[in-house]
Amino acid sequence: MHSPVAPVPAPEQTIRVLKFGGTSMGTTPARMRTVAERIARIHAAGHPVVVVVSARGSTTDELVADARSTSTAPAAREMDQLLSTGEVASAALLAIALHGMDVPATSLTGAQAGIAAFGHHGDGRISDIECTRLRDVLRSGTVAVVAGFQAVDASGNVVTLGRGGSDTTAVALAAALGATTCEIYTDVDGVYNADPRIAPDARLLRTIGSGVMAEMAYSGARVLHPRSVELAARAGVSIHVRSAFSDAPGTTVISDETGGEVLENAQPVTGIAHDTDVARVVIHPGSLAHRGLELFAALAEASVAVDLVARVGDRDIGYGWDFTIARGHVEALREVLARLECEADIHERVAKVSLVGAGLLSQPRTTGRMLAALGEAGIEAYSVSTSQVRTSFTLAKAHCGRAVDLLHREFQLDRPLEAVEHAVAV
Amino acid sequence: MHSPVAPVPAPEQTIRVLKFGGTSMGTTPARMRTVAERIARIHAAGHPVVVVVSARGSTTDELVADARSTSTAPAAREMDQLLSTGEVASAALLAIALHGMDVPATSLTGAQAGIAAFGHHGDGRISDIECTRLRDVLRSGTVAVVAGFQAVDASGNVVTLGRGGSDTTAVALAAALGATTCEIYTDVDGVYNADPRIAPDARLLRTIGSGVMAEMAYSGARVLHPRSVELAARAGVSIHVRSAFSDAPGTTVISDETGGEVLENAQPVTGIAHDTDVARVVIHPGSLAHRGLELFAALAEASVAVDLVARVGDRDIGYGWDFTIARGHVEALREVLARLECEADIHERVAKVSLVGAGLLSQPRTTGRMLAALGEAGIEAYSVSTSQVRTSFTLAKAHCGRAVDLLHREFQLDRPLEAVEHAVAV
Repeated sequence: MHSPVAPVPAPEQTIRVLKFGGTSMGTTPARMRTVAERIARIHAAGHPVVVVVSARGSTTDELVADARSTSTAPAAREMDQLLSTGEVASAALLAIALHGMDVPATSLTGAQAGIAAFGHHGDGRISDIECTRLRDVLRSGTVAVVAGFQAVDASGNVVTLGRGGSDTTAVALAAALGATTCEIYTDVDGVYNADPRIAPDARLLRTIGSGVMAEMAYSGARVLHPRSVELAARAGVSIHVRSAFSDAPGTTVISDETGGEVLENAQPVTGIAHDTDVARVVIHPGSLAHRGLELFAALAEASVAVDLVARVGDRDIGYGWDFTIARGHVEALREVLARLECEADIHERVAKVSLVGAGLLSQPRTTGRMLAALGEAGIEAYSVSTSQVRTSFTLAKAHCGRAVDLLHREFQLDRPLEAVEHAVAV
Repeated sequence: MHSPVAPVPAPEQTIRVLKFGGTSMGTTPARMRTVAERIARIHAAGHPVVVVVSARGSTTDELVADARSTSTAPAAREMDQLLSTGEVASAALLAIALHGMDVPATSLTGAQAGIAAFGHHGDGRISDIECTRLRDVLRSGTVAVVAGFQAVDASGNVVTLGRGGSDTTAVALAAALGATTCEIYTDVDGVYNADPRIAPDARLLRTIGSGVMAEMAYSGARVLHPRSVELAARAGVSIHVRSAFSDAPGTTVISDETGGEVLENAQPVTGIAHDTDVARVVIHPGSLAHRGLELFAALAEASVAVDLVARVGDRDIGYGWDFTIARGHVEALREVLARLECEADIHERVAKVSLVGAGLLSQPRTTGRMLAALGEAGIEAYSVSTSQVRTSFTLAKAHCGRAVDLLHREFQLDRPLEAVEHAVAV
C-alpha cells in the first residue's frame, strides 16, 4: 500500500502522461477538484505522472477578445505572450488543488519544462524537449503539471503551437519521456463517427487508425488536434481519448499498421467530420494572371493554411482559384490579397463536411452516393474534393447539421458493425 | 521633427522609465489607450522608453480568489507562477495597443527582461538585472514593456516581489539602465500629506524627502511601495509620482540630502499615513516563557513583518509581547503560534495611524498633542510607538477616518506652508 503523500515510484512503474482540456479544467473549483482526484489516484498507485493542461474554460477566448478590442490586428508575437498566460495560470491552480489533496506537485511553464519550438508565432512546431528538470521533478515523486500549448524560441520568446496545441504538447512529452501512451481527457466519451450533437445515432469508436483520425481532426473533428495525431503516429505513442468526468473506456488511436476499426469495417467511410469555422475563397479567373504560386507562397508565409484547392477557368478566360481557409484567417488573407492587388469573393457563411475513411477512391460509388443524397435533400455542394482518405465539400452553413445527419444515415454509420458488414456484403 | 514610427533615439536623449499601475492599465480598452497615447508622445520625442506595468484592474485579486477557492493554503511557489501571469498579459496588451498607434513595442516577462531575484516566494528581492536584451530592444527604437512585480530565481522559478512590487521593478530598471528619474503614473495626482478621501483638506506635496516618503509608505500610504523608495534613495534615482490621467505636476521624491518640503517646513509632521490592513497581536505575559526571540525568528522565516513591537510584563508575571502585522499574514502567524504552542489575542478590527516627519522626538510635544487630541475625541490609542521619523498607534478601525482628520487639523497640515511656519514661529 502506497502512502498518498510522495510515493517513491517503483522503477518498474510506467510514466503516465495525461492531458486535460479547458472544459475539464473548468471555471469552477469543483471541476478542477475532479481532475485532481483522478491524478491523485494514479499518483497513489506509484506512477510518475506528467499532466498537461489547457487554459481554463473561456480564458483564451477572453484574452483574444481583450486583444482585439485593443487593436484590430494584434501582432502574433504579443498574442503568444498574452495567450500563454492562460495555461500557466491553469497549471498553477491545478498544482494548488493537488497540494490540497496532499499530492506533491510543481507547475511548469513551457519554458521551464524545456520545450523549445521554431516557426511562426501562433503556429510553432516543437523542435526539442530538454527533460532534465522534468525528470528531476518526477524522480522526487512529484507530479509535474505542464502548461500546454506553449514553447520558447531560441531568443526566449514564447511561441504557441496553434489552437488546441496542448494535445501536441502532451504527445511530445510522452515521446520525449518514453511513455507508450498519452491519455487525452476531454468533455466527450471518446471519438465518434460523427458529431453526436448533430447525428443522434453517432457511434463511439473503441479504436481508430491514426491516418483516419488525422483526417477526421483536420476536417473539423475537435476532439484531437490533428498535429498531435501525426506526431503520435511518428513517435509510436498511442493516444487514448477519454472522458474527464467518467470511467468510460474511450477511444484508442492506434498506428495504421495495427489496424483500428477502419480495417475491421467492410465499408470505406469510418466517420463524418464537419467544420463550421471555414471561409470559402473564390478568386475569379484572370484576376491573378499567372501569379497563383505567388499567392500561395504569400499565404504560407502568413501561416494561412488552405484546403479544397481547385484551379478554375481556362487559357481563354484565365485561371482563378477556389479554396477554403479557417475563418480566423480571413483578415490575414485580405491583407495578402490587397498586397497582390487581387480581388476575390470571400464566403464566410459556409461549412465544410468530410467523409473520412480508407480507400474511398477504390469505392467509386462513395462520391456519387454522397452527391445524390445531398441533391435529393436540396443541398448544394461546392468545392468537392476527393482522395483515398477523405471526400470533402463546402455548403451553406445553415445546411451543415442536416447534411451530416443524412450522410451518416446514407453511409449506415448508425448501424452496429456487424449489420453494416452484412449490408455491404449483400 | 521625429517620425512617430521607430524614431532612432538621438544619443543625447535620456532613457525614460515609466510605471503604470493596475488602475491606469484599467479593465477597459479606453484606459489602456490613454496610457499608450502618453507613451507614444514620449517615444515620438525620441526618448528610449521602458514601461513597467502592473496587472490590469482586479486581475490579481481574482487570481488570488481562484487560488483560495481551490485550496485554503496555496503554496507560495505556485502563487508566484499564478499571479505573475497578470502582469505578463497586461504588458502584452499594452504592446498591442502601442502597435495600434504605430509605435514599435515588445513586451517582456520579468525573466525575459533579465530580472533575477533571491529570497522567499511572494517576497523576493531583486539581486541582478541582466540588461542585454532590454538594451537591444531600446537600441532598435522599440518601447520595452516589462511585466512588473516578477523576477526569476537561479532555477528559473518565478519569484514575485510582494504586492505593489512593480514600483520596485521600475526603480530597479531605472537604476540598472542609468536613468536619473523613475516616473510612477498612478490614479492620484501625487503624494498628499494625508489621505484626501479622509482628510478633505489634505495637501499635495510637490517634493518629499525619501526618508519621510519611506516612512509614509511603510505606514500605509499606498501611493508607493516602500521598498521602491529605499531602493531609489540608495541608487540615486529620484521618483516622480504623477497622475496617469492628467498633466498635473505631481510629487518628486528626492534624496534626503537634497531636502524636500520636510526641511522647508518648520513643523515636524509632514504627513499622516494610515493602514486599515493590520492586525494587533497581544501575547500574554508568561505564555512564551523566554522564547520571544524564537517567536520573532520564526515569524521572519515565514516572511511575516512585525511593527510597533512592545515587550510587556515583568520578571514576576513573565514577559509578553504586543505588536502589529499585516492582516494578510494572520494565517501564517497562527501557524507559527501553534507550532510554538503559544496563545495570543489577535485583534483584526484595528487600524494603524502614523504621524510621519523628521525630528519628531526633538519636538517632545508631538506625542502629547497627538494623545490629547485623540483623548478629547474619545478615541483610545494602543501600541503607541515613537521615533524621530514616525509616531504610530493602533486604534479601533471604526475610528480611523475621524482620527486622521482630527490629527490633520491638530498639526495644521491643512494650512499653506507659510501660515504654518508663522503659527509655529509664534
